[in-house]
Amino acid sequence: MTNGDYLFKQVYDYVLHRIELNEWREDEKLPSIRNLAADMSVHRLTVLKAYQLLKQENKIYAKDKSGYYVHSRAKSNFENLDNPIISAYVQKNHLSEIHQIPVSYDFSQALIDPNLLPNRYLSDYVKKVFDLYSKVLSTYSTIQGDGELRETLAHYFVHHYKTITPAENLLITTGSTQAIHLVAQAFVKARDTILLERPSYSAAIDIFRAQGANIVTVDIHPDGYDLDQVEFMMKTHKPRLFYLNPTFHNPTGYTVSAAQRKQLVQLAEQYRCLLIEDDAYHDIYFDQEPPPPIYTYDTSGTVIYLRSFCKYISPGLRIAVMMGHTSLIKSLLAVKSLADNGSPLLNQKIFLHYFASARVQQHIEKLRIALQIRKELMERVLGATDWRWTSPNGGLNLWVQLPSHVSTEELLAKSLQQSISFVPGQICDPLKQTSSWLRLSYSYSNEEQILQGIRRLIDQVHIPL
Amino acid sequence: MTNGDYLFKQVYDYVLHRIELNEWREDEKLPSIRNLAADMSVHRLTVLKAYQLLKQENKIYAKDKSGYYVHSRAKSNFENLDNPIISAYVQKNHLSEIHQIPVSYDFSQALIDPNLLPNRYLSDYVKKVFDLYSKVLSTYSTIQGDGELRETLAHYFVHHYKTITPAENLLITTGSTQAIHLVAQAFVKARDTILLERPSYSAAIDIFRAQGANIVTVDIHPDGYDLDQVEFMMKTHKPRLFYLNPTFHNPTGYTVSAAQRKQLVQLAEQYRCLLIEDDAYHDIYFDQEPPPPIYTYDTSGTVIYLRSFCKYISPGLRIAVMMGHTSLIKSLLAVKSLADNGSPLLNQKIFLHYFASARVQQHIEKLRIALQIRKELMERVLGATDWRWTSPNGGLNLWVQLPSHVSTEELLAKSLQQSISFVPGQICDPLKQTSSWLRLSYSYSNEEQILQGIRRLIDQVHIPL
Repeated sequence: MTNGDYLFKQVYDYVLHRIELNEWREDEKLPSIRNLAADMSVHRLTVLKAYQLLKQENKIYAKDKSGYYVHSRAKSNFENLDNPIISAYVQKNHLSEIHQIPVSYDFSQALIDPNLLPNRYLSDYVKKVFDLYSKVLSTYSTIQGDGELRETLAHYFVHHYKTITPAENLLITTGSTQAIHLVAQAFVKARDTILLERPSYSAAIDIFRAQGANIVTVDIHPDGYDLDQVEFMMKTHKPRLFYLNPTFHNPTGYTVSAAQRKQLVQLAEQYRCLLIEDDAYHDIYFDQEPPPPIYTYDTSGTVIYLRSFCKYISPGLRIAVMMGHTSLIKSLLAVKSLADNGSPLLNQKIFLHYFASARVQQHIEKLRIALQIRKELMERVLGATDWRWTSPNGGLNLWVQLPSHVSTEELLAKSLQQSISFVPGQICDPLKQTSSWLRLSYSYSNEEQILQGIRRLIDQVHIPL
Repeated sequence: MTNGDYLFKQVYDYVLHRIELNEWREDEKLPSIRNLAADMSVHRLTVLKAYQLLKQENKIYAKDKSGYYVHSRAKSNFENLDNPIISAYVQKNHLSEIHQIPVSYDFSQALIDPNLLPNRYLSDYVKKVFDLYSKVLSTYSTIQGDGELRETLAHYFVHHYKTITPAENLLITTGSTQAIHLVAQAFVKARDTILLERPSYSAAIDIFRAQGANIVTVDIHPDGYDLDQVEFMMKTHKPRLFYLNPTFHNPTGYTVSAAQRKQLVQLAEQYRCLLIEDDAYHDIYFDQEPPPPIYTYDTSGTVIYLRSFCKYISPGLRIAVMMGHTSLIKSLLAVKSLADNGSPLLNQKIFLHYFASARVQQHIEKLRIALQIRKELMERVLGATDWRWTSPNGGLNLWVQLPSHVSTEELLAKSLQQSISFVPGQICDPLKQTSSWLRLSYSYSNEEQILQGIRRLIDQVHIPL
């Protein structure tokens, strides 16, 4: 033991003893670092280290600049729930905060199990990026995003969908959340009416709501929309935009047909309603490829297309792309320059080099099989119940209806105690009504977790609430 | 030559000939990829490749999904100015767009010459990050930012300024632009009054203006503010917040004294005005360390502190940190979750490991010397003129006043033709008045460029405008 270690232990033991003997009581302020260091004739950093370890062990806590305090014994086991930030979110039922509660059976994350992602290969591309661009960490990207990446993605679009979009009409964003946020800031003012699917992606609901939008909805069904309802809503409410997710829709997994896609573009043109097409999981199909994006049917600049290729490759890179007519991209670019002045270049280059390689297709093909197996397993276990769902042809989620007497909000509270999480339907409802629907993601848990976790979840419903 | 190369060349030559012979005229539409492929009996991708090469060579251009067109000869040399996005920005005189014009003598970027940054060392830390966290690209960071990074930065603050801020009161952002944008969204509504220094950081002016703020100003002088003026403005206008940059202020390089810092916190408390302290270049001092941040004088939660440590280490990582009282951070966190749901984890981990190493201090010490040499060189060359400035003790810029008959806006137009750029004072003025001031950054150009470029700039002024 070095002298430093010895002194550290001395300070640590001294403080812990005072707390354990109740000489220093709950929520009482500890001596300042400076004073205790002087009293014990040690360096201030030694005291700081001791306080930090005690803090990690939940014996003491720090308070905004005023110093350290003795933790209450009762509180320390509920550190998470005590955090005022987290509890505010839990009360507001934000999806992101359900995700922060660590559970053994996680069916709430519409993310892909990191074990299914090409981590090792990606680190090779990272090395390649540093060899190619030695100053990649010293330079900013342009606001619009790396030119090479935009050219590559534009090319991909011509190749896959025979749709020409010049690289100048692409904008790279830090994930698709930012893309939706840019749309809201560029095109929606407070009290503007917008149209959302019901149910819809909860982060998008939150973003448009925070922008002060007046939200009206159209239902999405397993075979798409009732286009008469869409037309009625566009005619009556003149929405500024319709944010939609027509391919393996989140949360339902439903897909809008090619015929409806064409008609939708016509309606949107007629009623001058922007279509914001969020297409996060286009490549995650099981049996057959979905129809091409709505964007490919648009010839008049009515559609803005958002795609996060990154989600099933390397979500941590946070790279998404927006495409649209010159004038629309120009407005988005102005907002992007204020929001963060451009996404990090390193992340764009790593993504570019992996995306441009032959490995991407191999990865996606394997991923489809792995996810289909997980989906089918989840459906098999759920088959023992009277719960109902439409089996999706792609995506990451099952949208399940429980018997009508079950409140999925209450079920969530019970399930979390059993270390199971899912998304209650209310979170996905722009109108925030209680519901007997829930979203179960089969993409984040492995097969054993799906088997055990779904069985336990079923048990929760059969025990009277 | 393979058959594919041969066919490609055939298509390429065919199209180029039609254009050169003026058979296909300026702005005329080219045959669709599908039709030309059929006519020439080649694969569509062959036509696409030929079109793309011709586009790169500025012979043709692509237009939103409608196809390819013949480029006008006159236009092709002004590709940048033709881009409607860029020209819109240039008209609006956004700083970021001056930066996009490539010049040989760049005094407009308040960035550090990439050759002075630790590129090679950083790539070592990137490898370390992948060894330590093999799934760093498969996972999201929390919205608030990586816990390990926040602990390290909180510790740095205790160590340097004896100010305890718990890691829970830190928020990691994608660069300081995003931090300012979050502040604007969380605390400023349309028509709220805010206080800015005059001059001020142009990106901040743009952000608050876009938020609809009513902007009032206080002048910043070489020795700080006139505190009576500050009090008068706070009393009269009741601003929601005062965004300030008291240490090596951008654009002036001025630093507010410790005595004024204390009084400022008192005034802000008294008039319930949030202080948003942007502290980008605290470590870039030449002779003596500046006073500690205003944040360290605050005991009542009146100050939000923004710091981009990254700018003089690896600007490409885009990592900044915000610190403040729990309730303020809570509001910022809600906005951050909507804006991008958390900054990329990879970037945070790379920064963390470099920042926690001993190399950082060595790097910063060398950097100070290099920048001081460049600053003194620029001042020596400028010594031949009657231009005036106050020599800064740190930061990246000289704030220079030209003879009053010189319009720096007109001078910029002339200078750009000589491949010299700088920032005209008007861009930094919240009130956007014309001015004979300009900002010259000495940090981005090397010594030779400073010597040659500043001499040329001086010549521009002496040639009648």
